[in-house]
Amino acid sequence: MSKKAVVLLSGGLDSATVAAIAHAEGYELHALSFEYGQRHKVELDRAKQVAAHMGIKDHRIARIDLGVFGGSALTADIDVPKDRNDSEIASGIPITYVPARNTIFLSFALGFAEVIGAQDLFIGVNALDYSGYPDCRPEFVEAFQTLANLATKAGVEGIAPFKIHAPLMEMTKADIITKGTALGVDYGLTSSCYDPGPDGRACGHCDSCQLRLKGFEEAGFKDPVPYAS
Amino acid sequence: MSKKAVVLLSGGLDSATVAAIAHAEGYELHALSFEYGQRHKVELDRAKQVAAHMGIKDHRIARIDLGVFGGSALTADIDVPKDRNDSEIASGIPITYVPARNTIFLSFALGFAEVIGAQDLFIGVNALDYSGYPDCRPEFVEAFQTLANLATKAGVEGIAPFKIHAPLMEMTKADIITKGTALGVDYGLTSSCYDPGPDGRACGHCDSCQLRLKGFEEAGFKDPVPYAS
Repeated sequence: MSKKAVVLLSGGLDSATVAAIAHAEGYELHALSFEYGQRHKVELDRAKQVAAHMGIKDHRIARIDLGVFGGSALTADIDVPKDRNDSEIASGIPITYVPARNTIFLSFALGFAEVIGAQDLFIGVNALDYSGYPDCRPEFVEAFQTLANLATKAGVEGIAPFKIHAPLMEMTKADIITKGTALGVDYGLTSSCYDPGPDGRACGHCDSCQLRLKGFEEAGFKDPVPYAS
Repeated sequence: MSKKAVVLLSGGLDSATVAAIAHAEGYELHALSFEYGQRHKVELDRAKQVAAHMGIKDHRIARIDLGVFGGSALTADIDVPKDRNDSEIASGIPITYVPARNTIFLSFALGFAEVIGAQDLFIGVNALDYSGYPDCRPEFVEAFQTLANLATKAGVEGIAPFKIHAPLMEMTKADIITKGTALGVDYGLTSSCYDPGPDGRACGHCDSCQLRLKGFEEAGFKDPVPYAS
């Protein structure tokens, strides 16, 4: 019987690749997505399509209220920055940072994993492209793993410990796209845009679109998703 | 100007006491409660009453979906155990344990604190009465504090670090009640029962009611809340 793994699935390019990696490693996947008041809700439809395409039978969507404290361009009424150059993107913590988001997401994944008896959690964080996000760094992932093994029955009853897998951590966007393409990921199903139009088309100008487009260009593939302009 | 603190407020006896302690230490309190599909929703009304009684102006209630993975008598359709003796209560992890609950609650508190510029988080966990809950132990709280300072802007930009306060950690229920009474907590506003009746009356028989009643008895006070039997 396959080992179970919980995969955080956002509907974006990175998490689709992570799911493909976990699948290739032989895990039985249990996907978890969040409806958290994000502007880019089209993500959730894409997450469902990615899960269906990969044959993931157990895909749960948790409704959580991050808008209760706001503070991010992704959950509050703040403009998403557009057309920033590489050095602007690389400098500081962007306004699209959602406070404690990955901590919250991993906490839910941990509870889910504990209930279904999975020891392995997969998350698509990446320290290179999102150097400004504190909760995308290896030391964050390590600290969460330590916490996970104290926060749960595993820490009390000597059950096999949790492992947090972040296989994209040190990869460039081009590496990720190359790897996912080799594993059969259909990137046409994914959505990366922070500010898609009402028709779901990517804006092509936010940080996330720019990183994605650059990644496809460097990898030598054409991005299959439609852009507004 | 007072320093801001985020206080997790459940409507129960412990968190009301923690709020009173933080208030007495001079913090400006920002309370956070959760509607998480708990059976004992009366808690939330009590949390509002406690916040109002203490003059807390900023009290937010986050709706989160823990039922998405179930696995606990508090969120799923599993009977709450009744009339267990002391050794039964003390042995093992009870079915009322909600997987990763305190990790999730603290993650939200962390995001809230980051947005409002608070460095201090207060939580009413207690290692003595709830020895069976892994996420009520001092090593859990320490690990969360480490995580908090890696997960946020504090870890990247050298902002003053977060501190997780768990002032009840080593106190008995009787100690907690004595302390809270001295600080003016109105325990008549609080609710501890895991399985209250439709009229909001405590059952008097679940682990939580038993611990509460024993605590009041040992402290030499009368519990002001009404019981069903």
